[in-house]
Amino acid sequence: MAYITQHSAGVPAPVRIGLIGSGWMGAFHADSIARRVPGAVLAAIADPNVESAEALARSLGAAKVTPNAEDILADPEIDAVIIASPARFHSSLIAQAAAAGKHVFCEKPAGQGLEELDAALAAVQASGVHFQVGFNRRYAEDFLAAKKDLSAGVAGTPQLLRSLTRDPGNGSIPNAARVPAWTIFLETLIHDFDTLNWFNEGAEPVEVYAVADALVEPGLRDQGFLDTAVVTIRYSNGAIAVAEANFSALYGYDIRGEVFGSKGMVQAGRATETAARRFTSEGMSADTPRLNVELFRQAYTDELADFAAAVRARRDGLPPSSSDVTLTPGASDARRALAMALACIESVKHGAPAPVPAPAASTVAYAGEKS
Amino acid sequence: MAYITQHSAGVPAPVRIGLIGSGWMGAFHADSIARRVPGAVLAAIADPNVESAEALARSLGAAKVTPNAEDILADPEIDAVIIASPARFHSSLIAQAAAAGKHVFCEKPAGQGLEELDAALAAVQASGVHFQVGFNRRYAEDFLAAKKDLSAGVAGTPQLLRSLTRDPGNGSIPNAARVPAWTIFLETLIHDFDTLNWFNEGAEPVEVYAVADALVEPGLRDQGFLDTAVVTIRYSNGAIAVAEANFSALYGYDIRGEVFGSKGMVQAGRATETAARRFTSEGMSADTPRLNVELFRQAYTDELADFAAAVRARRDGLPPSSSDVTLTPGASDARRALAMALACIESVKHGAPAPVPAPAASTVAYAGEKS
Amino acid sequence: MAYITQHSAGVPAPVRIGLIGSGWMGAFHADSIARRVPGAVLAAIADPNVESAEALARSLGAAKVTPNAEDILADPEIDAVIIASPARFHSSLIAQAAAAGKHVFCEKPAGQGLEELDAALAAVQASGVHFQVGFNRRYAEDFLAAKKDLSAGVAGTPQLLRSLTRDPGNGSIPNAARVPAWTIFLETLIHDFDTLNWFNEGAEPVEVYAVADALVEPGLRDQGFLDTAVVTIRYSNGAIAVAEANFSALYGYDIRGEVFGSKGMVQAGRATETAARRFTSEGMSADTPRLNVELFRQAYTDELADFAAAVRARRDGLPPSSSDVTLTPGASDARRALAMALACIESVKHGAPAPVPAPAASTVAYAGEKS
Amino acid sequence: MAYITQHSAGVPAPVRIGLIGSGWMGAFHADSIARRVPGAVLAAIADPNVESAEALARSLGAAKVTPNAEDILADPEIDAVIIASPARFHSSLIAQAAAAGKHVFCEKPAGQGLEELDAALAAVQASGVHFQVGFNRRYAEDFLAAKKDLSAGVAGTPQLLRSLTRDPGNGSIPNAARVPAWTIFLETLIHDFDTLNWFNEGAEPVEVYAVADALVEPGLRDQGFLDTAVVTIRYSNGAIAVAEANFSALYGYDIRGEVFGSKGMVQAGRATETAARRFTSEGMSADTPRLNVELFRQAYTDELADFAAAVRARRDGLPPSSSDVTLTPGASDARRALAMALACIESVKHGAPAPVPAPAASTVAYAGEKS
Repeated sequence: MAYITQHSAGVPAPVRIGLIGSGWMGAFHADSIARRVPGAVLAAIADPNVESAEALARSLGAAKVTPNAEDILADPEIDAVIIASPARFHSSLIAQAAAAGKHVFCEKPAGQGLEELDAALAAVQASGVHFQVGFNRRYAEDFLAAKKDLSAGVAGTPQLLRSLTRDPGNGSIPNAARVPAWTIFLETLIHDFDTLNWFNEGAEPVEVYAVADALVEPGLRDQGFLDTAVVTIRYSNGAIAVAEANFSALYGYDIRGEVFGSKGMVQAGRATETAARRFTSEGMSADTPRLNVELFRQAYTDELADFAAAVRARRDGLPPSSSDVTLTPGASDARRALAMALACIESVKHGAPAPVPAPAASTVAYAGEKS
Repeated sequence: MAYITQHSAGVPAPVRIGLIGSGWMGAFHADSIARRVPGAVLAAIADPNVESAEALARSLGAAKVTPNAEDILADPEIDAVIIASPARFHSSLIAQAAAAGKHVFCEKPAGQGLEELDAALAAVQASGVHFQVGFNRRYAEDFLAAKKDLSAGVAGTPQLLRSLTRDPGNGSIPNAARVPAWTIFLETLIHDFDTLNWFNEGAEPVEVYAVADALVEPGLRDQGFLDTAVVTIRYSNGAIAVAEANFSALYGYDIRGEVFGSKGMVQAGRATETAARRFTSEGMSADTPRLNVELFRQAYTDELADFAAAVRARRDGLPPSSSDVTLTPGASDARRALAMALACIESVKHGAPAPVPAPAASTVAYAGEKS
Repeated sequence: MAYITQHSAGVPAPVRIGLIGSGWMGAFHADSIARRVPGAVLAAIADPNVESAEALARSLGAAKVTPNAEDILADPEIDAVIIASPARFHSSLIAQAAAAGKHVFCEKPAGQGLEELDAALAAVQASGVHFQVGFNRRYAEDFLAAKKDLSAGVAGTPQLLRSLTRDPGNGSIPNAARVPAWTIFLETLIHDFDTLNWFNEGAEPVEVYAVADALVEPGLRDQGFLDTAVVTIRYSNGAIAVAEANFSALYGYDIRGEVFGSKGMVQAGRATETAARRFTSEGMSADTPRLNVELFRQAYTDELADFAAAVRARRDGLPPSSSDVTLTPGASDARRALAMALACIESVKHGAPAPVPAPAASTVAYAGEKS
Repeated sequence: MAYITQHSAGVPAPVRIGLIGSGWMGAFHADSIARRVPGAVLAAIADPNVESAEALARSLGAAKVTPNAEDILADPEIDAVIIASPARFHSSLIAQAAAAGKHVFCEKPAGQGLEELDAALAAVQASGVHFQVGFNRRYAEDFLAAKKDLSAGVAGTPQLLRSLTRDPGNGSIPNAARVPAWTIFLETLIHDFDTLNWFNEGAEPVEVYAVADALVEPGLRDQGFLDTAVVTIRYSNGAIAVAEANFSALYGYDIRGEVFGSKGMVQAGRATETAARRFTSEGMSADTPRLNVELFRQAYTDELADFAAAVRARRDGLPPSSSDVTLTPGASDARRALAMALACIESVKHGAPAPVPAPAASTVAYAGEKS
C-alpha cells in the first residue's frame, strides 16, 4: 500500500463508563454514549435485571454485564459511572462510587432526603471526583441561549421567572407512575427548580408555596397521587418565580422558561417539532414535540459529552473546559433543587408557605465548583 | 471480575470509508463520520495536499493518509468513498470508484457537464455500487417534514413552488469564490433545483428562465462574476417554480422551501437559530442561523448515516431500509438538477427561456432507484 | 338635481352618551365614541376639571360640558353614561346613574369594596338598566378567538390557567401611580382575574395566595407601594390559575392568557406590534406593542360598540344581539373579580392563602345576565 | 340645564364624498366612509343598478342616489368621488371627475391602457385635483412597518424583492371571474407591482418575464383564462423582483412582501388571523386570514382616511399632512404599475421577456407628488 502515514493514536484514550441501571433512561444514556458522545466508551452495565442489561449490551455491540453495581465500582478499567437506578438508591450509589474513586454522573434527583444527599456529597468532596447531576435542560439549545443572554444582562435584574413541565400523555396516568404522592415535585418539578435557580444565579430560594391536585385522574386523588402542581417561589434577591407541572399534555412535551427583569425578558421553549408549517382549509398547523428524548436529544448528548470532557480533563490533568456561562450542574445545584422539592411537600401538607432550608455549610465549598 | 458476559461482537462490522478531498467540506464530513455517524469508520484520507490530510487524520485520531485517490480505490479494506474534491474531478472519480467496486457518496454537483456525468453514472450502473449525491437539504428535519406532508397530499397538486438559498456574508465576495461566472447555478442553486424536483416528485423540469447579476459586488460584473440569481422553472405537470440565490446575506444562512397546491401550502425553513427570544427596549429579537454546518449539522450527519446504512445493507445482503417518502438522492436526481443548472447558463447567455434537456434514457433505469 | 331618492333616516337614532370623567381613559373612550363606534354620539362630558372637559369637547367638535355629573344624569337627552372617574367614585356613580335610568358602562374596578359594589349593583338590578364593566380584554381578537376555542371544547376541562399583565415602563414608577399599596390588585390584576374567570366559565374562584413586592423601585417598598405580584388561584372545578403583574416592562405592553386542560391548550397574547420582521447582522427583530390603546385599540372600540348596541336594543325594544360565546362583562363578573382582588390584599397582609368570598346571593340573578 | 358650554362647531366640515359604483368593493368603501373614517360623509351614490345603490344607501342611513355618475359630478355639494365602477370605465371617469373639479380616489387599475390613463392623468394635472389610486396594501400595518424600515436603511440597497397574492378559494374559479385572460395581471398582480415599486422606491421597472397558466381549473385553459402567474422583474438599480399570484388558496387570503438587500431583509405578511394558538393531539394550529376585507380592514379604512385628510387640506388651504415615508399612491404609481401589467401580457403572448415602457414625460411632474 502507498499510504504514507498511519494514525492509530495521538487522540486521548476514551473515557470508560459504567452504567448502573438499564431502565428506560439508562438505556437511552447508554445509546448516547455508544453512538453520539465522542471520546467515551460504554464499558459495562450493571442491573439486577440481567436480561435487560444483556439485551442493551447486545444491541450496542459491546459492554460487560453484571447484576451488581459493586462489580463496576471495583473495576479498575472504569473511569466513571452513570447512575440511572431508581431514585431511592441514588445517594448511596453516589457515596459508594465516590469512595471507589469513580467520577459520577447521577440522574435527578441525586437523593430523596437532605441527610442522605449531604452524606453522598460529602463523600464526593472527600474523594475529589467529578460530580454532575442530570439537569439536562441546561444543555437544550434554547435554554442555553437564554442563559447566555441573561449572563450578558439582557433582562437586567430578575423580577419574575417561570418554568413549566408538561409531560406528554393521553389523559390517563400510566400504572408505572401511580407511585405515592410526591413524584411531581421530586422527579419532575426538580427540573424546573434547577432551571429557575440557574436563570436566577446568585440568589437563593427562600420560601415556596405549592398547590397540587389529581386533575388528570381525579379518581386517584384518594390514593394521594398528584398529577398537577403550581409552585410560587420567593428568592433572596426579591424575584418571584412560578413553576408548574402536569403529567398529561395531549399535545406532547411542553417545556418552557422565562425570565422578566429590570431591562427586559428572555424566553426559552420550543412550541413545534420543526420549523415546517402546513396551511390548509383548516388553517395553519404544525407538529408539536412529543417525547423528551426527541425534543432534548441534543441536550442529552451534550450533557454526557460535557461529563466525558470533564472526566477526561481530570484524568489527564488538563484544565477544565471554560464556558462563558455557568453550565455543568453540580453538587450545590443538586442539593438546592432537592431542598425546594422537599419544601414543596411541606407546603402541600400544611396548605401554607414553607421555608426552603439554607444550603449546607459544606455545599457552598464543593470541590470544583465556581465560588 | 464478576462480569457475567462480555459482548465484543454481535453488531455488524462498521462500514470503512475513504475520504477523497480534505478541504472544508471534506473535513466536515470526516468529522461527522468519526464522531456522529454510528456504524461507520473513517479509514483513509486522500488529498494532494498531504499536510491538510495529515492534520485532519491527526485531529480525528485515526485514518491512513495518501496524496493519491487511487490508493484508496485500490485498498481492499475500503468499502466506500466520499468524494469531496473540487467539482471538476467529480465525474471521473465517480467512474473510477465505481469501476473499483467502491460505493460512492459524491458532493454536489456530481459533474459539470451532462456528457461526463452520464459516463460516470453509466459506470455506477455497470458496477452496481450504491450511489448518493450530497443534496443534504433532503435530510433537514423541516424539509423532510414538509416532504412527508406533501407525500400525504396536504398541498394537493403542486401549482407554485419556491426554494431559496442565501449564503451568509458580510457584503463582499471572498477571493476564493471569485471564480468564473457559473458557480451560483452549478454549486448553489443546484441544491434548490433538487429541492424543487423532490417536492414536485413525478414531474420533470421542462424550461427555465434565469436572470443573474453581480449585485453584491458590482465591481466584479465585468469579470463575469454572478452573485445573485432568480430562476423561473416550468414543470411537466404545469407547476411553476422559482429558485433564488444570493452570496451575501448579512443576517446569516437563509434556506427556505414552499409548495402551494390545489389543497394548501407546505413551508420549510428555519428563521432563527433556536427558539429563544429576547424582549428589550429595542423590541423582540433572536439570533439567526449563521453557518450551513450549524443549521444543517443534523442533516449532514443523517445523509451520511443513510449512506452508511445503505452500504451496510448492500455489503451484508440485507434489504434496503424503507422509508415512507423518497429520501436518498441518487443518480437521476444528480443528473436532473445538473441539467437545470446548465439550462440556466444557456438562459442567461441568451436572455431568453431555455429548455431543460430530457433525462438520459439510461438514467430512468439506474440500478437501485425506485421506478 | 337628478337624484332620485334622498335617505335622511331609516337608520335607528344613535345612542346619546354622557361621559363622566375626562382623564386619560375617559378621553380615549370619548374619542372612540366620536370617531370609531357607529350608532353612538358623545353628547356631554362632565368633569370637575372643566378645562380638561372643554378641551376634549373642542377636539371632538361636539358635546356639552359641565363640572357636575348630576347634570348629565338629569339630562333627558342622555341614554347612557360612561363612568371613567377615579375608582373611588365608581360605585356611587353607578348607583346614581341606575337610579336616573341611565344605562351604565363603568371602567374597572366597578367598586373598591364589596359592600359599596353590592349596593350599586342592587340599584342597577332595581332599575333594570344595562350594566357593563370595562374588562376590554374580552374583546381583543386573540382572547376572543381563544374563548371561542375554549367554548368549543378544544382544551377540554381546564386544569391550569395563566394570565399576565406587564405594563410598559422605563424602570421607574411614575408619580401618578405612587398611590397607596393595592393598585396592582384593584386596577391591574383585576383584568387578569376576569380573563381567568371568563376562560374558566362555570367555576368559582375559591382561594388565592398572593405575593407582592416593590421590585421595580425597591426604594418605595417602605411606603407600601407594590409593583410586582404573583397570585395563585384555586377554582371550584379544581383548576389552578396563576395571575402575574408588573408595572415596568421595558419592552412594552405584554398581555397573555393560557388555558391548559384535559384535551389541549389554548393561548392568547400578541408578542409583536405587527407581522413585519427585520433580519440584519444583529439577527431577527420586530417591534413590540407599546401602549394598551395601541394593542387594544380595536378591543376598546368593540367593547363600546357592544355597549351601544345593547343600549340601542333595550331602548328600541329589540332582542339583544346573540353571540356563540359569553362576551359582555356584567354585574356578576365585576363583583367576582373584585372579590378576588380584595382576597389578594388579605393574603398579602397575612402571608397566607385567603378565601374568596362567595358570590352575593343577588348577584347570580342580575337582570339581563345569562343564567 | 347647567351645561356651561355647547360645542356645535370648531371642527372642520366633513369631506362630502360621492361613490360611483355600488358593487362589492364600492359598498365596502361606502361602509368604511359611513362608519369608520372620521371627517368624511357619504353624500351620494351613483350606480346604473339603482336598486343596489338604494339598498346600500338605506343600510347606511343616508346618501342621495342616482343612476348617473354625471349627477354626482355636477353636484356642487360633493367634494370628492370614489370610483369603484368596472375597470373599463375608470380612466374616463377620472378625466370627467377632474374636469368637474372633484378630488378623485380610484380603485385599481386606474385604466386598462396607457393611452387612456395618460389622458385621464393629464386631466387630473390640468385641474389640480387630488388623485389617489386604491393600492391599499401600502396602508396595511405590517407593510407600512416594513416600508419604514426600508426607508431607514435596514435592508440597505435592494437586491431581491418578492410580493405575492393568493386569493382565497375552494379550488374552482367563480363564474364572475371567468373573464377573458388578463385579469390576473391587470387586477391582481397590479397590487404586487405597486408594492414592489414602493419598496424599491427610486428605481424604475425595466423588463418583465411572465409565465401564466390555468392550473386551478385546467379546463378553462382553452378559453384563455389564467389563474396562476409568476413574474420576474428587472429594475433600473439592478434589483430582481418576483411577483406571484393564484386565484384559489384553500387556506385563505395570503399576501406577503419581502425585500433582501445589502444590509439585511425586511418581511411583511401575516400568516394567521390572530395571535391565538391552539395545541391538541393534532399538534399546534391557528386560523388563517380568510377575506381581504378582514385582513386589510384597517388598511381599507386608513387609505380612505388619508384621502379624506388630503382633500380636507386642499379644500381648507392647509399644508398636506407629512409622513416620514412615501405613502399615498398617486398618478405616477398608478401608471407605473399598469405599464408593468401590460408588459406582462406582452411577455406571456411572446413567451419572452418584455420591456416596461418608460414613464410618460408628464407623469414625473404630476401636481402634488414628491419629486
